[in-house]
Amino acid sequence: MPRLRVHAFSLSLDGYGAGSNQNIDEPFGDGGLRLTEWMTPTRTFQKMVESGSEGGSGVDDDFLARGVDGVGATIMGRNMFGPQRGQWKDDSWTGWWGPNPPYHNQVFVLTHHARDPIPMEGGTTFNFVTEGIEGALRRAFEAADGLDVRLSGGVATIKSYLRAGLVDELHLAIAPILLGDGERLLDGLGDIGDRYERSQLVSTNPWPTSSSLVADQEPNPRH
Amino acid sequence: MPRLRVHAFSLSLDGYGAGSNQNIDEPFGDGGLRLTEWMTPTRTFQKMVESGSEGGSGVDDDFLARGVDGVGATIMGRNMFGPQRGQWKDDSWTGWWGPNPPYHNQVFVLTHHARDPIPMEGGTTFNFVTEGIEGALRRAFEAADGLDVRLSGGVATIKSYLRAGLVDELHLAIAPILLGDGERLLDGLGDIGDRYERSQLVSTNPWPTSSSLVADQEPNPRH
Repeated sequence: MPRLRVHAFSLSLDGYGAGSNQNIDEPFGDGGLRLTEWMTPTRTFQKMVESGSEGGSGVDDDFLARGVDGVGATIMGRNMFGPQRGQWKDDSWTGWWGPNPPYHNQVFVLTHHARDPIPMEGGTTFNFVTEGIEGALRRAFEAADGLDVRLSGGVATIKSYLRAGLVDELHLAIAPILLGDGERLLDGLGDIGDRYERSQLVSTNPWPTSSSLVADQEPNPRH
Repeated sequence: MPRLRVHAFSLSLDGYGAGSNQNIDEPFGDGGLRLTEWMTPTRTFQKMVESGSEGGSGVDDDFLARGVDGVGATIMGRNMFGPQRGQWKDDSWTGWWGPNPPYHNQVFVLTHHARDPIPMEGGTTFNFVTEGIEGALRRAFEAADGLDVRLSGGVATIKSYLRAGLVDELHLAIAPILLGDGERLLDGLGDIGDRYERSQLVSTNPWPTSSSLVADQEPNPRH
């Protein structure tokens, strides 16, 4: 039975899945790109962005690869597709990802504003869905043709699907950083904790960067 | 140089260090005791509560033991000491921990309401400090006599010390559970992320209980 899956969705220690003030220079908002630094060195990521670099294997790579294996279509929110809000003023925007986006399947973008599909290189087509989350899910399952659908993001979109009980699997990556502000994923979701069960808990260590986190310095003014 | 340390402070995946509605039956608030389940099987915990059981060793036990080693005094907030609020109406309350609390040193309880010290079995004395967090810290360092001071909890107390830049080390244990509501630790702390550095990141797996978490079930009503 095809499933709706979220993979490699990164949260800061203070629970943010994105920083505040998303804009064209900061797709994840202020400081939010630090959430995804663990992905960059992996083989799956390097292959996804067709960098020509090899990338590394290991636990991080395994988790990223799971988000590609068996996935036949993608759903994302409007804000994940771009920084524009409201009516489409400028049709030249085709996403953050350049001419060959890393999806390589049919991507369904939730929006209140209709727009023609955008075929991209590498098999990705951005389709704009105005029929809400269930409509997007129907279309995505149809496009996936028996494979699973990946729910890509961002925070508000995943929350909508979680609230509706439509998510079959959610993989979270906890980044040992503090963002201080932004969009929280696991907030206001009611009794969702009762409706799911933890299937796995894995650590990767060391975190690839020396990003800041409360511990072990000497901030104490009395010293 | 003696330091102020927080150890084994557990947060849920959604960032709560305690559930809501603390009361005499639920010292950690609704569902909050699940935060601490990882401690119970350890050797250090079993020794701390003088259960007579042996307990296990391993990563969890190592982390708990660090919170005891080299610690000469303890600070906690009023709400961690008990469920009463405001004036002490009933002096019979001597904490959640029975006649022999697991501290075995001088414990300084932050309160706005003076009360005489309570000497307990096993070397613990509860002292009630009305001079605020810096006054409590001075008294605790004095009592620790060259050893470190452990800042025990709860959430509001640790936040106060973090905001004041008085915490030298903070060890957090992330529990793979959702509480849904409660007191958040890493919230409204401003630029604290810039003032500290992550020193270590370790995983223990499996989490001792099968507590709920978003993953891998079949809540999807379309199936």
